[in-house]
Amino acid sequence: MTAGTEPVYDVAHLGRVELHTPDIEATRSFFVDVLGLDEVERLGDSIFLRAWGDYERASLQLTPSDRPGLGTTSWRASSADALERRVAAIEASGLGLGWEDGVAGHGRTYAFADPDGHRMAIYYESEYFVPDGADTPTLKNQPQRMATRGAAVRRLDHVNVWCRDIDENTDYMTSTLGFRISEQVLDDDGKRIGAWLHVTPKSYDLAYGRTDPAGVGGRLHHIAFAVDAREYVLRAADVFLDAGVKIEAGPAKHAVQQTFFLYAFEPAGNRIEVITDGRLILAPDWQPVTWTLAERQRGQAWGTAMPDSWFTYATPPADGGATS
Amino acid sequence: MTAGTEPVYDVAHLGRVELHTPDIEATRSFFVDVLGLDEVERLGDSIFLRAWGDYERASLQLTPSDRPGLGTTSWRASSADALERRVAAIEASGLGLGWEDGVAGHGRTYAFADPDGHRMAIYYESEYFVPDGADTPTLKNQPQRMATRGAAVRRLDHVNVWCRDIDENTDYMTSTLGFRISEQVLDDDGKRIGAWLHVTPKSYDLAYGRTDPAGVGGRLHHIAFAVDAREYVLRAADVFLDAGVKIEAGPAKHAVQQTFFLYAFEPAGNRIEVITDGRLILAPDWQPVTWTLAERQRGQAWGTAMPDSWFTYATPPADGGATS
Amino acid sequence: MTAGTEPVYDVAHLGRVELHTPDIEATRSFFVDVLGLDEVERLGDSIFLRAWGDYERASLQLTPSDRPGLGTTSWRASSADALERRVAAIEASGLGLGWEDGVAGHGRTYAFADPDGHRMAIYYESEYFVPDGADTPTLKNQPQRMATRGAAVRRLDHVNVWCRDIDENTDYMTSTLGFRISEQVLDDDGKRIGAWLHVTPKSYDLAYGRTDPAGVGGRLHHIAFAVDAREYVLRAADVFLDAGVKIEAGPAKHAVQQTFFLYAFEPAGNRIEVITDGRLILAPDWQPVTWTLAERQRGQAWGTAMPDSWFTYATPPADGGATS
Amino acid sequence: MTAGTEPVYDVAHLGRVELHTPDIEATRSFFVDVLGLDEVERLGDSIFLRAWGDYERASLQLTPSDRPGLGTTSWRASSADALERRVAAIEASGLGLGWEDGVAGHGRTYAFADPDGHRMAIYYESEYFVPDGADTPTLKNQPQRMATRGAAVRRLDHVNVWCRDIDENTDYMTSTLGFRISEQVLDDDGKRIGAWLHVTPKSYDLAYGRTDPAGVGGRLHHIAFAVDAREYVLRAADVFLDAGVKIEAGPAKHAVQQTFFLYAFEPAGNRIEVITDGRLILAPDWQPVTWTLAERQRGQAWGTAMPDSWFTYATPPADGGATS
Repeated sequence: MTAGTEPVYDVAHLGRVELHTPDIEATRSFFVDVLGLDEVERLGDSIFLRAWGDYERASLQLTPSDRPGLGTTSWRASSADALERRVAAIEASGLGLGWEDGVAGHGRTYAFADPDGHRMAIYYESEYFVPDGADTPTLKNQPQRMATRGAAVRRLDHVNVWCRDIDENTDYMTSTLGFRISEQVLDDDGKRIGAWLHVTPKSYDLAYGRTDPAGVGGRLHHIAFAVDAREYVLRAADVFLDAGVKIEAGPAKHAVQQTFFLYAFEPAGNRIEVITDGRLILAPDWQPVTWTLAERQRGQAWGTAMPDSWFTYATPPADGGATS
Repeated sequence: MTAGTEPVYDVAHLGRVELHTPDIEATRSFFVDVLGLDEVERLGDSIFLRAWGDYERASLQLTPSDRPGLGTTSWRASSADALERRVAAIEASGLGLGWEDGVAGHGRTYAFADPDGHRMAIYYESEYFVPDGADTPTLKNQPQRMATRGAAVRRLDHVNVWCRDIDENTDYMTSTLGFRISEQVLDDDGKRIGAWLHVTPKSYDLAYGRTDPAGVGGRLHHIAFAVDAREYVLRAADVFLDAGVKIEAGPAKHAVQQTFFLYAFEPAGNRIEVITDGRLILAPDWQPVTWTLAERQRGQAWGTAMPDSWFTYATPPADGGATS
Repeated sequence: MTAGTEPVYDVAHLGRVELHTPDIEATRSFFVDVLGLDEVERLGDSIFLRAWGDYERASLQLTPSDRPGLGTTSWRASSADALERRVAAIEASGLGLGWEDGVAGHGRTYAFADPDGHRMAIYYESEYFVPDGADTPTLKNQPQRMATRGAAVRRLDHVNVWCRDIDENTDYMTSTLGFRISEQVLDDDGKRIGAWLHVTPKSYDLAYGRTDPAGVGGRLHHIAFAVDAREYVLRAADVFLDAGVKIEAGPAKHAVQQTFFLYAFEPAGNRIEVITDGRLILAPDWQPVTWTLAERQRGQAWGTAMPDSWFTYATPPADGGATS
Repeated sequence: MTAGTEPVYDVAHLGRVELHTPDIEATRSFFVDVLGLDEVERLGDSIFLRAWGDYERASLQLTPSDRPGLGTTSWRASSADALERRVAAIEASGLGLGWEDGVAGHGRTYAFADPDGHRMAIYYESEYFVPDGADTPTLKNQPQRMATRGAAVRRLDHVNVWCRDIDENTDYMTSTLGFRISEQVLDDDGKRIGAWLHVTPKSYDLAYGRTDPAGVGGRLHHIAFAVDAREYVLRAADVFLDAGVKIEAGPAKHAVQQTFFLYAFEPAGNRIEVITDGRLILAPDWQPVTWTLAERQRGQAWGTAMPDSWFTYATPPADGGATS
């Protein structure tokens, strides 16, 4: 029996992720030819893409940069009023960066940063993707035809970033944006060293996966795209194998969240995950599942040990280093 | 680009379904031995069960009755305040039935009916299932060990009922409870003859599946339990085959909602669906997908024709008739 | 406990099927774009194709013709001596058609007909497919890279033909070629009205699926291509749906053989099956599973009723009729 | 284009494996409760079991012993004459051990050893399993009802043993019994350090997986049971997880043979694999796929590194050691 508190549902879902890449055409080729996304448009230096199940115009933005890493992570608000409420809270927090014109289908957008410096944005108005010609699906209740190219991932799923102080960042996202914590790892002092946050009943939409061992701010561990079943994560590994894409880890099952994962690197060095979600968290009063450090040292669900790179490599690399 | 309206998130999810059965032990045996649920407790004449992935104490209540059919469908509110808000709205509608003591883990509960007479209830306080002994899972982020018995369904998914006036019932559930319509079928006059409603990002939690052809009130088409992937719906059909359970339709893919389905009857005649969900609706401003009558006459997604019984049989039977 | 008889293993497997088509480019497009085969070469008027898991140079030959239907079905012998033995047996049967030069990778080939007039051939020498460039797989133990285009079927599986007298044809293939019967359907007089034959431990390589209701000789019911798991048969149905390919039946599970099936028509009207095999028959003294007519009238494994066309349409059509 | 040689098809398939166990009831419980086999009978000190898809009376024999390890591996001949031919060849080899009465459904049986000392036997006469009561399947073309208990493996698949000289043992099994080599690993001197042999079109039925690093004779690496699809190997891992069974490696995809694997230990220390087969080898003139030592050091198909125990531990343990 749990006490009632009033959840905030002002953030609807993750809407778009921007990746920085020193080799935009190679990165684009990975997303299009290997993962199966479609290019939607080019604006300025950026290329916009989407997975076949994403309902909005574009869910991935590739932007040229000297180094790989994460650009802006954009969240869609639940309503115009919800947007105003969250912007007010962000401004009150002192981490607001101001209003911007949205691009590639987004209406007006408010930019901000989390305490660790990951640039984020929130918007409400959004263009839905409108298929035409060969993209038009036979069934009208899907955004476009099912992709068959490469791993044919269905939709953008989540972002996993590292930060220097997970408690500070988690508190910010929960109190200011209304994120809820589904699972967390605590060190022996009770400090969070990993936290998974969600705004949808998917069990996470944003993860602060690890306290950055290099003490660098604003780094990316990975972005994830979802497929419908574990078999399609296995199929993605088969696709990666023949495409010459180096697999970092998996397919295997996470202990935390029980998602079924596959990790690899796009050509510019950003880590990509193909995932299928384990479960929905429908309970409105869900209490975070808490793992101790000792519990987490037992490996993934089936005992799978992760390679060192998974614990040490994020983008941009702390030392300009390679992925392995 | 859509105009902003403020969604209501006061109903969190479907929490429990009560089934009426003239042969409670046979019905129990179907749910336990064939579907793989666990019996949790017996109170009064009722037997309470749960699927291994349901987080609450009990998600299914079997109650003896002269005829098969639906008892009370219970929805969990998002907070104690949300419960009060919805009860106020229900009372204002004139369809409230009053407060009751909750049973089998539910706190105080407010009962009501939809306009067609389906008895429903809303509650907030709820006991989580606490596993012990052989039920305790190895991973602490699931409610109990994964079931392996029979079809081993994971969780209660949705309820599909018939009613005499779908517009009237849909309007009630949306305006009074905050349900949203994800898909609908309109006849040539623009009147709804099928509507799928949701409170979670699952694309439906409640369906008014068909205008009751017999003009009877309060009838049940089916209740549904979810498994993780299409392969497990196929496996459920294999389990049904060897268990001597008559399959009414499927496994196949719905056109509406694209869920992958299998229909059969429990021994007392209530229709049961095993399902895997097709997709999440994360858009806060989703506009209902509207199908015309002509479109729906094309059969299910892959052209599968449903048997007559699927269009004519609900519980309690209109004429005391059998399932086929 | 069964008496020992000496099986003959002179036929190794189905090697190639030739299809007649009045619209070869449309038929080719179906096999390449929808099923995912590759075009290997063109010789004379014919186009040769292969599935990614077929080890020989070409497993499918498309040949222009006024009407759809089956050309030559070619079986690979187990050795050069085995070829000579089978040719001697065929010549003794009086149904031999003589030696021919093999095409598209086949060495010398002996042509014959079954009693119903289906043209067949047997050969031993065969070129293995040699991938180069973008076809070269990462793992050397597969013939080429895994296909990802369309349904991406893995290999040619079997041929199902109709004939006027199934006993006569079955006896011929067993006594002359060494085929074994895995399952059969008998009418009330004990006469076969369906028979499934195999030379590999796959439970069938050739089926005399039905006594031709039109009394026509040499007709084709379908050719089948295999995928690795039931999920990929479902995925093939999804691919067909968006490609506008009419599905005749399935996906569902056969009662006979328990294979998981999907039937559709290529543009020229030949019926194609996508299948995943249910089981291996490793027993050397396997006795045919015999179904009565009454048993077969119960539908497929899960009760699925097949459409009329499946029982009445073969190619070439008896009356020039359409597929439905 | 390959030269014709005459293959020998006198061995039909692997029929039974005998495991030694110091704790027969614990071992039995693993096979029954976790893997899902059925106990068939007890004779003398032994317990006989079978998987639901095995057509013979019993495919696994558990026998008490001081140490874990492999007892007799039994192969079914293709005919009574084939049995005589192979016994003559074995006797000529000098490794024959003589005729025995078969047990638990096997007729007269000839025992022998491979050069490394693994005890084997060959038989032809065999009782088919006859289901009764709750075991009788709805479809008559399967041996019994589909199991649903635990991992519910379908059939015995293969045996993988270590030996001191793989060339010697491989030559013996090919020349004396008619096994064929599908894949092999050669060291830099061209000597085999791994070989996979088959008598069925499954790509292996017997593996000499590694030159025994401890120089001990007659040791077992693992026995394997097959399931129908990769998803069921994943499900087996989930079952192992909740049953407290330590997973040694996998689920993952082998590079050699491309089978999808999961390794664990039964309570007495014998290694068990749950597997789904990657492909059939239908070519009668298949030339072994040869891997170099360097190629094999790249890990499994997707880069998975195997734990040390997988390369060093066999039963009986060389030093009485534990599994890890």
